[in-house]
Amino acid sequence: MASLIIGIAGGSGSGKSTLTKRLSDIFGDEVTVINHDDYYKAQDDMPFEERCKQNYDHPDAFDTALLTEHLKQLKAGKPVECPVYDYTVHNRSHETRTVVPTSVILVDGILILENPELRSMFDIKLYVDTDADVRVLRRIKRDTKERGRSLDSVIDQYLTTVKPMHEAFVEPSKKYADFIIPVGGRNPVVLEVIENKIRNHLK
Amino acid sequence: MASLIIGIAGGSGSGKSTLTKRLSDIFGDEVTVINHDDYYKAQDDMPFEERCKQNYDHPDAFDTALLTEHLKQLKAGKPVECPVYDYTVHNRSHETRTVVPTSVILVDGILILENPELRSMFDIKLYVDTDADVRVLRRIKRDTKERGRSLDSVIDQYLTTVKPMHEAFVEPSKKYADFIIPVGGRNPVVLEVIENKIRNHLK
Repeated sequence: MASLIIGIAGGSGSGKSTLTKRLSDIFGDEVTVINHDDYYKAQDDMPFEERCKQNYDHPDAFDTALLTEHLKQLKAGKPVECPVYDYTVHNRSHETRTVVPTSVILVDGILILENPELRSMFDIKLYVDTDADVRVLRRIKRDTKERGRSLDSVIDQYLTTVKPMHEAFVEPSKKYADFIIPVGGRNPVVLEVIENKIRNHLK
Repeated sequence: MASLIIGIAGGSGSGKSTLTKRLSDIFGDEVTVINHDDYYKAQDDMPFEERCKQNYDHPDAFDTALLTEHLKQLKAGKPVECPVYDYTVHNRSHETRTVVPTSVILVDGILILENPELRSMFDIKLYVDTDADVRVLRRIKRDTKERGRSLDSVIDQYLTTVKPMHEAFVEPSKKYADFIIPVGGRNPVVLEVIENKIRNHLK
């Protein structure tokens, strides 16, 4: 049985990772989660200061061709070596993670519907659509509380890259979704309908 | 088994009736379709000329309380007498249609997610979201070819009531949907996922 590949997109703070986690919790070992973020490009030749200044919300920051190739291999029943990104140094780490072709593969990322080749790999395309004010408030909470960043730096990054890239690339990719999900990842009807679809695939 | 009630909303020309028809074709006798349009208010006391000038795209044009009450009765296993609207005289006809509580009830209408009591009746809320330019072109085709109206009158009605009511009442109701469906009613993934959910209910 070929893997069912579900793409879960949405802006930063939209709740897409909540939805991804809930689905993966339900199905346990039958599901693998792959994050587009782990496919940030390797930047070995770039000094650390330069790497800090890159725009990580632009499609060019990702090695999307590699992710697409990996999904093709998984679909064909072959295991792949997923890159692992090291955020502390803004670079790909030397580790990889072996991913075997489970029945269901969830691919999570803000820009996974933007690239035509990548989005053609998904059997179901979801976009979690949450108002921008709610998204920015979640991002502020997360980055100040969990990542120890200052409020000013979070606001500055939001206005200089997150927001313009969202409007240029993330938001327009919404129309490629099969289903747009308003109000984030906690809607029980959404969870149940997608769960049903996955259960039918597993049968 | 209580009926599964699915609300299918979306602007004029969005493709919501196509989606409704496809789902109802799949499940045949197990599905009943109810149109909010049949619940346009009775206007027996109003002269025909006045009835022609009413704004049929405003929430007040509908007897939504009656539709809500009917869905409650159907959910409780009781048959109802659905009104039948007569478009030729812009008034409720003297006929009714007996609707029995089938396993699945599809409720179709541009404004079915706008009213809080009505939308609380739906087990699943869908909104078919299609670009305004595509929607107006479909409306022009339908009204000039199938309903024999002049292009000017279609454009005039669109600009004076359809568009402003859409922006005031239909579009804002989108956020109450569980799933927003872009690109109209012909997406096979959407059909399959909703079909799966209905089949699980029927089991």
